[in-house]
Amino acid sequence: MAEKIPHWLTKQAFLAPNRVAIERVDGSTMTFLELKEQSQLLAKKLASLGVGKGSHVGILSNNNVTMIAMIHALSYLGAVAVLLNARLTASELNYQIKDANVIAVIVEDNLFEQGKELEVEKVFNFKQVHLTGAKEIELLSELDLDDPFTIIYTSGTTGFPKGVIHTFGNHWWSAIGSALNLGISDKDKWLAVLPYFHVGGLSIFIKSVIYGMPVYHLNRFSEDVFLDAIYNRGVTIASVVTVMVQRIMEQLGEKVFPEHFRCMLLGGGPAPVPLLEQAALKKIPVFQSFGMTETSSQIVTLSPRDALRKIGSAGKALFPAQIKIEGTTLNEIGEIFVKGPMVTKGYYNNDLANRDSFHNGWLSTGDLGYIDDEGFLYVVDRRKDLIISGGENIYPSEIESVLTGFPGVKEVGVTGKPDERWGQSPIAFIVPQNDYVRKEDILDYAKDKLAKYKLPKEIHFVNSLPRNASNKLVRNKLMDLIN
Amino acid sequence: MAEKIPHWLTKQAFLAPNRVAIERVDGSTMTFLELKEQSQLLAKKLASLGVGKGSHVGILSNNNVTMIAMIHALSYLGAVAVLLNARLTASELNYQIKDANVIAVIVEDNLFEQGKELEVEKVFNFKQVHLTGAKEIELLSELDLDDPFTIIYTSGTTGFPKGVIHTFGNHWWSAIGSALNLGISDKDKWLAVLPYFHVGGLSIFIKSVIYGMPVYHLNRFSEDVFLDAIYNRGVTIASVVTVMVQRIMEQLGEKVFPEHFRCMLLGGGPAPVPLLEQAALKKIPVFQSFGMTETSSQIVTLSPRDALRKIGSAGKALFPAQIKIEGTTLNEIGEIFVKGPMVTKGYYNNDLANRDSFHNGWLSTGDLGYIDDEGFLYVVDRRKDLIISGGENIYPSEIESVLTGFPGVKEVGVTGKPDERWGQSPIAFIVPQNDYVRKEDILDYAKDKLAKYKLPKEIHFVNSLPRNASNKLVRNKLMDLIN
Repeated sequence: MAEKIPHWLTKQAFLAPNRVAIERVDGSTMTFLELKEQSQLLAKKLASLGVGKGSHVGILSNNNVTMIAMIHALSYLGAVAVLLNARLTASELNYQIKDANVIAVIVEDNLFEQGKELEVEKVFNFKQVHLTGAKEIELLSELDLDDPFTIIYTSGTTGFPKGVIHTFGNHWWSAIGSALNLGISDKDKWLAVLPYFHVGGLSIFIKSVIYGMPVYHLNRFSEDVFLDAIYNRGVTIASVVTVMVQRIMEQLGEKVFPEHFRCMLLGGGPAPVPLLEQAALKKIPVFQSFGMTETSSQIVTLSPRDALRKIGSAGKALFPAQIKIEGTTLNEIGEIFVKGPMVTKGYYNNDLANRDSFHNGWLSTGDLGYIDDEGFLYVVDRRKDLIISGGENIYPSEIESVLTGFPGVKEVGVTGKPDERWGQSPIAFIVPQNDYVRKEDILDYAKDKLAKYKLPKEIHFVNSLPRNASNKLVRNKLMDLIN
Repeated sequence: MAEKIPHWLTKQAFLAPNRVAIERVDGSTMTFLELKEQSQLLAKKLASLGVGKGSHVGILSNNNVTMIAMIHALSYLGAVAVLLNARLTASELNYQIKDANVIAVIVEDNLFEQGKELEVEKVFNFKQVHLTGAKEIELLSELDLDDPFTIIYTSGTTGFPKGVIHTFGNHWWSAIGSALNLGISDKDKWLAVLPYFHVGGLSIFIKSVIYGMPVYHLNRFSEDVFLDAIYNRGVTIASVVTVMVQRIMEQLGEKVFPEHFRCMLLGGGPAPVPLLEQAALKKIPVFQSFGMTETSSQIVTLSPRDALRKIGSAGKALFPAQIKIEGTTLNEIGEIFVKGPMVTKGYYNNDLANRDSFHNGWLSTGDLGYIDDEGFLYVVDRRKDLIISGGENIYPSEIESVLTGFPGVKEVGVTGKPDERWGQSPIAFIVPQNDYVRKEDILDYAKDKLAKYKLPKEIHFVNSLPRNASNKLVRNKLMDLIN
C-alpha cells in the first residue's frame, strides 16, 4: 500500500523551525521555516505560471539555494522536477526536454542566454518567477511515497540518455538507508558541493529535510573553501568524488583532518587504492560507496566499522537494499544487480530500457564487481569498459589503480586497443605531474604488480583525460586522443 | 506499492554479526549472528510442529530472551505472533485465542501449568520446541512491509479487547520515526523492562535489529538492577512507565543521573507534572510520549530540544506521523486523532471496530487532549474517564497531578461519583506514604490550585489502586473500592 507522510519540508519546519537548513560560505543561513516559506511562496508563483499537479518542469541551474527552493516548490504542487545538467549542450538538453515531456524550464538567472536555445514552450528565469504574483491555491500537505518527484537523466556515456524517475519514496528510503549506516547526530552538518542536478548532490538536501540537519552549501569546489568548511565551520560529513580527495590531500600537506569530521562519502566510481591508503594516513575517514542515478545515490557503502579493514571495497548494501552478482560464486567477477525501495521503479517513457534493465525486481547496473567471503562488494569496472585480451578479462581500473601509485603520475585512463593477435590489448593514457616522469620507469614499477598480459602495451602522456558532464572518466573516448 | 526489504534480522546479522544484540544482567550476551541462528533454527523446529505461512501462533511468556527468538522465528515462516499478556486469566486468554484464530500457543516453561487451561489444539512449551527436530525448509529472506507480523490485544479497560494487527511496515516505520527524533548513535544501549508482550516492550527489540543496537534485557523491574544498568552497564536509553520513574527517584536520594544516559522514554499515559519537575532536578532526561498499541508504540514524543521548555507535553507527532484534535481550535480540548504508516491498518476480524475507529485514514484514539500555539500536544485523559459536573468538563488527571504534588501522597486516582445536583462530582482515592497525612491538609493544599468545582468532594485512603494487566490505572473500577 502506498504510504503517505506529511510533506517533509512542512514537517521539519514544524518540528525545528529555527534550526539552520542551509548555510552559505558568507555565513548567512536559512532556517527550515524560511526554506519552507520561500518554497511555498515559489510554488504559488509557479502555479500562476501554469505549473500544476503532474507537470514536468525542467530546472537548469548550477549549485544554488534558489534552485533547491524551486525543487521543493514543485513538490508542493505535485509537479515533477526534471533536473537538467547545466554542462550539457543545447542539443543534448533539448533531447531530454523532449523525451521527458517538459512543459516549462526554470533557468538560473546566469544561464538565461543558454535557456534561450531550449526548445520548449515556456522558459522562466528565477527572477521572472520571483516577480510573478502568487496564486492562492492549496498546496500538498502530504506526500504519497509512490508519486514521482524527480526525473534525472543518466549521464549516458553510450547511447541515448535515459530519464530515471525517482518517487518521493525512492528519495525517502535512500535517506533512511544512509542514516541507518552513518547514524544521525544533532551535531551533523553535511557539505554539498557535487552538482545538485545529480542525485548525489540533491540527496543531501533531502536528507537535510528528513533529518533536520544543516547543509553547508558550496557553489563550486575549491580546496581552500572546502578545508575552511571542515576546519572552521563544523562540517562533519561531505560527499565527494575522487578528484576532490586528491586535490584536498595535496593542499593539506602535513596536516591531518580534525576529529569532528566523521565521513567523507566517496562516490562516482572505484577509487585507486593508493589514494585511500594516503587518505587513511591523513586521518580522512573516506567511505567508499557504490551507487548510480537509478539507486537515488549510494546503495552500497563501507561502514565505519570496516573502513580500514576493507580498504578498496564499496562495502555492504545499505539496510533496506540487496545486491547480487549474477551467475557467479564468491570472489568471482560478474555483473552487479541491485534491489530495494530506493531503486527507481523505471525509466520514463522507455519500455525498452525497462525491459532490458529489470529482472524479477532486480536492476542490472552494467557494472562489474565481486563479493568477497565476508560479503563485501568490490566494484571492478563498467561492463562496457572490460578489455578482453587473448581470452583473459582485463579490468582497466585495476591497471589505473596500480599506475596511479607511481610517484609523478597524476591521472590515468586505460582502454583496450584493437590487436590482431590478442583481440585487444590494454594501453594507458597518463597525465604526468611534471616533466621528469619516464614511461620506462612506470612500466618497470608496474611489472611487479601486474601480470604480463595486463601490462599496458603503450603509454601516452596527455594533458587531460576525457570526462563527461559529471566529471567521470569516459574510457571510450581515450582512443580519440591519439587518432 | 508494497515495499520489500531484506529480512531485518538476517540483514543485521550480515552487517554486524559480532555486535551484541541482547545483554543480560549476568553479563552474558547474544550477538546478532547468534540471535539470527537461534531464531532460524527455532523457525525450522516450529515448521516441524505444523507452523507455516499465515499461521496464527500465540506466545505466552514473561520477559525472556527465548520469547524474542520465538517471535523472530515466526517472522521467518511468515506466521503471525499473537502476543498474549501473561497476567490475564485463562478465560481472558481463551477469548483472545479464539478471536484471533490461534492454532497453537507457545508457552514459557514456567507458565506450562497456565498453558494447560488454554482452549487451543496445540500447546508447546519452549523446551518442547527446542527438543523437536528441524524441518529443512526455505525461510523468508525478505519481508513484505504489508504482511502482518504481530497481533496484540488492546488492554480493553471497557468492552471486549480488540486484536490490533501490526504489519512489518508498522514496526519498521515506528522504529524509523523514533530514530528521526532521538537520533541513532553507535554508543546506544536500550534498556527493556516493560512487558515484551506489549508493543512498547517489543518495539525495543525491533529497533535493536534495525539499528544494530544492543538491548539490555531485564526479566522484571527493580530499582537496584535498573540503576546498576544505567550507572555501570552503559545503558543510554530506557522505556518506562510513571511508577518506575517514581521508584527510581526515591531510590536515587541525592544522586543525579550520569551524563551518558540520554533518554528516559515515558509512556503509558500522562505523567504528573510535579514528577517531571523533580526528574529534571535529578538530571533524568524524561521524554514524555503518547502512543498506544494501535500506533505500534510512541507516535508523539517530546524531542530533546523542547523537553524542559514544554514540560508536561507529549510533544509533536514523529516525523512520518500526523495528529489532529477533531473539531476544535488551538488550545481547546477534544479527541485526538492519529495518522501515519506506523498506525495499524485495522483490528483483526472486527469490522465494527474498524468502521468505528477509522475515518478517512485517521484513527480515533479515545484520548482527549489539546494542541498549544506552537503545535505541542497535551494529553488530558481518556475520553471515557471524563467527569461532567454541572456542565463543566473535569479531567481526572489534572486533579491527580495536583494531589500528587502534596508531600506524603504516593498515588492518586480520581473518578466521578453520581451526584443528584451536579450529575457527577469528582472524588479522589489516595495511597498515602505514611500515617501522618491528613485529608484536610490535602484539600487545603489543593484549594489554591484547583477551581472549586474540581475539588474532590470526598477523599478515600486506600492501600492500592486498581490497575490492569498493563499496570495502568483503571478509573472505572475505583468506585468498587468503596461499594
